[in-house]
Amino acid sequence: MSKVAYVNGRYVAQRDACVNIEDRGYQFGDGIYEVVHLHRGRFVDEGLHLDRLERSLKEIRLPMPMPRAALRAVLAEVARRNRVTEGLLYMQVTRGVARRDHAFPAKPVPPALVVTVRRIPPYPVDVTKWTGTAITAPDLRWARCDIKTVNLLPNVLARQAAREAGAIEAILFDEATGMVREGAATSFWIVDARGRLRTRQLDHAILPGCTRAALLAELEAEGIAFELGEYSLEELRGAREAFLTSATSFVKPIVRIDGAPVGDGTVGPVARRLFDLFARHVHGGRNAA
Amino acid sequence: MSKVAYVNGRYVAQRDACVNIEDRGYQFGDGIYEVVHLHRGRFVDEGLHLDRLERSLKEIRLPMPMPRAALRAVLAEVARRNRVTEGLLYMQVTRGVARRDHAFPAKPVPPALVVTVRRIPPYPVDVTKWTGTAITAPDLRWARCDIKTVNLLPNVLARQAAREAGAIEAILFDEATGMVREGAATSFWIVDARGRLRTRQLDHAILPGCTRAALLAELEAEGIAFELGEYSLEELRGAREAFLTSATSFVKPIVRIDGAPVGDGTVGPVARRLFDLFARHVHGGRNAA
Repeated sequence: MSKVAYVNGRYVAQRDACVNIEDRGYQFGDGIYEVVHLHRGRFVDEGLHLDRLERSLKEIRLPMPMPRAALRAVLAEVARRNRVTEGLLYMQVTRGVARRDHAFPAKPVPPALVVTVRRIPPYPVDVTKWTGTAITAPDLRWARCDIKTVNLLPNVLARQAAREAGAIEAILFDEATGMVREGAATSFWIVDARGRLRTRQLDHAILPGCTRAALLAELEAEGIAFELGEYSLEELRGAREAFLTSATSFVKPIVRIDGAPVGDGTVGPVARRLFDLFARHVHGGRNAA
Repeated sequence: MSKVAYVNGRYVAQRDACVNIEDRGYQFGDGIYEVVHLHRGRFVDEGLHLDRLERSLKEIRLPMPMPRAALRAVLAEVARRNRVTEGLLYMQVTRGVARRDHAFPAKPVPPALVVTVRRIPPYPVDVTKWTGTAITAPDLRWARCDIKTVNLLPNVLARQAAREAGAIEAILFDEATGMVREGAATSFWIVDARGRLRTRQLDHAILPGCTRAALLAELEAEGIAFELGEYSLEELRGAREAFLTSATSFVKPIVRIDGAPVGDGTVGPVARRLFDLFARHVHGGRNAA
């Protein structure tokens, strides 16, 4: 069966699915995206993702391409037509097609919407087989990383550097201060040398991760302490544990950074507990829809 | 006559010209572009633009989509098919179509190339009718603005802010230091309170403007003094003259900034002289091909 994509009102074969060369997403990266995990036919943390989509759109002054209920129906229909129940839904909204000019189109045009889905393996069961390694890299991104735009070239270059180092993620840090921000496409967490669970506070420098938010809510419900705040590369290097979170990684322990083991180089107790906690969340825990 | 675009080896009607939704230009802004001024059928500063294209591609590790001579032939053919002799050539190279993944495609795919052209009015003759106003805005862009990528959302937002203020350009400054960088899509120049012609030095924070480079070469040939270096917002506000340069603006005097007149609010003698100097360059001066 060939894959089906939704493109501006039509369901089309994905290999033929195209957008005009003057779509502002193509010429300016003038667009927003989301990736949602589809598990057993259910969209995990759907509300958080759609909230973030709306917020990102608003920050760059793009309207929602359709009401939220209609968008949910499109997402469900793309999953259904592709017969995917374990997968990743990708949606992208751009400022539509207009004669090239940096400023917004003088005559407003409808935003463009593209939705695709792809199948992924079943949810991981063994956290010891769900580990990865990372590198560190200076954060070259713009000043509004809280907006989930398709201006992703710095992220692309950082991820490529990670791959060439045999790692799965680049942990980005502020070159001026030496403080850790987040992964190139993930939120980042440590258990520091004193055993404190830490992740960076939200501001314009990092993306408000949906998986991060869902995990934080689970931590609160469980009474597990954490600290929101900056930590340095030095603290990262001295950490007992490290892990990343995202809609595609869930809770993923990072066991080596820049070639050196994190703690003893194996999955630590906190990452293990949080992996289990988040798995319960995904499988339909208290915050499930 | 409907417009014709070149898209990945084919000349197609521009209204139907499209790229796959998994083109990395669309999903990641993973691409480079150039805009070249076409005057009386000749590409102005073509060598500078193609050099910069090659350099930008190299910096993000993309190959040239074809040898330079073949690319020049495509540019000429797009102009010819559209019967444009006064216009702007737009070319965009992206990392091609691949299943979405931040890192470069594991199996290399050919880069995508799109070329379009559009007609513009004849070259301006009266500099007093070729003026504009500007606003100032903090520079939110990434750390490698020397690369001409399609990650242009911060530029889009700055230009939109300018338009809403009734201005044509936003002059971007480093929020931390208060030093001026460049326009959202132009190079920027002042004649300071002491009469010195100044534009910012090149580094990773600004684009190496082709029109800037061509004008600097003309200045050297004419023995006109200039200083390459940073200047502050305060110096900008105290400037006698200000102007911007780009392949689409040539030398364009800026007569008001943030609502206040620059100097006496009219075109000054230096901008006038440089407008004439650059017009001669465009019309086929000593550096013409």
